[in-house]
Amino acid sequence: MRPGDGQRADHDLAFLLRYENVAWYEDGAVRILDRRIYPAEIRFVVCHSHREVAQAITDMVTQSCGPFTAAAAGMALAAWECRTQPEAAQRTYLRQAAYTISHARPTTAARMERITGGCLAAAEEALKSGRVVDRAIMEHLLASNNKRYSKVAQMASYLVDLFPDDGKIMTQCFGETIVGMMLREARSRGKRLRLFCPETRPYFQGARLTATVCREMGFDTTVITDNMPAWVMQTEGIDVFTCAADAICLDGHVVNKIGTLQIAIAARYMGIPFFVSGIPDESHPDKSAVHIESRNPDFVLQAMGVRTAAEGVKGYYPSFDLTPPALISGVVTDLGIYSPYDLPRYLRQADIGPYEMVI
Amino acid sequence: MRPGDGQRADHDLAFLLRYENVAWYEDGAVRILDRRIYPAEIRFVVCHSHREVAQAITDMVTQSCGPFTAAAAGMALAAWECRTQPEAAQRTYLRQAAYTISHARPTTAARMERITGGCLAAAEEALKSGRVVDRAIMEHLLASNNKRYSKVAQMASYLVDLFPDDGKIMTQCFGETIVGMMLREARSRGKRLRLFCPETRPYFQGARLTATVCREMGFDTTVITDNMPAWVMQTEGIDVFTCAADAICLDGHVVNKIGTLQIAIAARYMGIPFFVSGIPDESHPDKSAVHIESRNPDFVLQAMGVRTAAEGVKGYYPSFDLTPPALISGVVTDLGIYSPYDLPRYLRQADIGPYEMVI
Repeated sequence: MRPGDGQRADHDLAFLLRYENVAWYEDGAVRILDRRIYPAEIRFVVCHSHREVAQAITDMVTQSCGPFTAAAAGMALAAWECRTQPEAAQRTYLRQAAYTISHARPTTAARMERITGGCLAAAEEALKSGRVVDRAIMEHLLASNNKRYSKVAQMASYLVDLFPDDGKIMTQCFGETIVGMMLREARSRGKRLRLFCPETRPYFQGARLTATVCREMGFDTTVITDNMPAWVMQTEGIDVFTCAADAICLDGHVVNKIGTLQIAIAARYMGIPFFVSGIPDESHPDKSAVHIESRNPDFVLQAMGVRTAAEGVKGYYPSFDLTPPALISGVVTDLGIYSPYDLPRYLRQADIGPYEMVI
Repeated sequence: MRPGDGQRADHDLAFLLRYENVAWYEDGAVRILDRRIYPAEIRFVVCHSHREVAQAITDMVTQSCGPFTAAAAGMALAAWECRTQPEAAQRTYLRQAAYTISHARPTTAARMERITGGCLAAAEEALKSGRVVDRAIMEHLLASNNKRYSKVAQMASYLVDLFPDDGKIMTQCFGETIVGMMLREARSRGKRLRLFCPETRPYFQGARLTATVCREMGFDTTVITDNMPAWVMQTEGIDVFTCAADAICLDGHVVNKIGTLQIAIAARYMGIPFFVSGIPDESHPDKSAVHIESRNPDFVLQAMGVRTAAEGVKGYYPSFDLTPPALISGVVTDLGIYSPYDLPRYLRQADIGPYEMVI
């Protein structure tokens, strides 16, 4: 069940294969593209148990939407691990695996539970009908991803409406599906966007991933360091700042990669609109539901594996920040553009299944 | 004439020796501490001609105030190079050397000319009185630095007045003399400051230099990446944002390391005061006199020597930015704290010689 083996649907495009579907399950192993070294090297981390998958998610082997696909693949692997046990034991084993995988990273636990919950439901149906459980979980993953791609394609269309024909667009971090679909849409309309990508320390997702996608999609792409956005907005005439989100709270607060808040403040100061793409997340009714993950502080004291600071100096590594609705011009969804102060209306209008992935 | 050989005055302290006086001239060579690899390694670039000194300044071997000391040492070396020529030829040679060294970096040319101009004047006096020219230039450098240290000590005292006793202070880049004297002053008053230093990509001056000084002076020091200042201001309760400047225009615009503008915008948004320390620069009557240097764009596509971005992606490397007076709470000088809108008054009140270094 590798990407491209004919089981995939309409939106199964090159950029999805390369940038999103970076984890798959096959016969007792999950392979995850190691984004920590990509694009310098293309190497896969091979996990032989769902615990190893959870650890790989914790270790940031994959980012953005990658962990969600990895989570479902990890659930298929868990099903394989317990396949010879009695049905009741399989159910218990899978529930424990779902918990382990969902809590691999605290900030995304609620969204992870939608994925693992969907996998548990698919497993339950398979058990009842006597089908092979790991295969059923992978089929669920494919169907669920395809439904999501349709929504993201619609979202991308609304987003690109907001860009001038020769627009200069600033991004932040790497929302791979939305970035890829946004650029495909822009290209199909002949919009000649120029992309400015802050490098996104300490992992350099912006330099390593976002900029690579933008360039491979044929757009003029410039990487800047994370201290440059305000100055580049002013001197280059940036038209729009846009990013995806790790969570969009119903009160309009947005959780995204550290740095988003600062760029949003600069955009407001410069009079530049800031659009966030994604689905409002009912598991985050307001900002009090947000847990900002602090990662290993030593990681901030190095760059690309080389130590930067002297001994005795501390590091601090909040991996996300929270941008308030007052700084957000609009939330771009599959149903159109919403004010950040009007997100509960989206949920009333949308058709979101209980296990659907919200991005 | 090495640092510490007894020819130096009151302010000749450990941190000045280590962090500022990083270039010296001796018998036909200038040695410059290579800050590009410091503190990982202590190595000196040895220059055998003033052109090599100019190239070292262009190549960022030394930063902040280092280039000014290197420039004067380079002038002493130029005097040595032409020492056997007739007096008239020596004058011509030194004038050409002054031009070459002053223009090693476009942004600082006007301030460099104050240094090289002072060296030319010292050389002229030496020629007239039959003294050894290179020695006269180095004596001028020491006297001039000592005068400057006195002013910076006064400035540091006014700056520390503005900090709470347990203040959390955010810095930007590395104004070595002011940072060192500020911390010495804070320590002598028993203020237990906590320092938060953005790493200052792409050269990591904040992580490599500022944080090292702060730690060695005994303060609790935390390095953050350049996308964290706004979030850290909000969550850690930063009291003051402060930095030195590459130039303070008389209309209140401040030229400093790229990123200063963005942090200043965030500080304004968060209600945190921003103080800039330095001497208003009459060679910059307003922001139209500022030339922002663009450096090699490829440098932004790597970190600590390791490539971050894919082929085909562009970089952009403006080395400084310009912060408007509306974002500046006060300019801290040796005569006290001035509104950024009232800087010509400083010049009327101050006693600045024509060749005095303005920092």
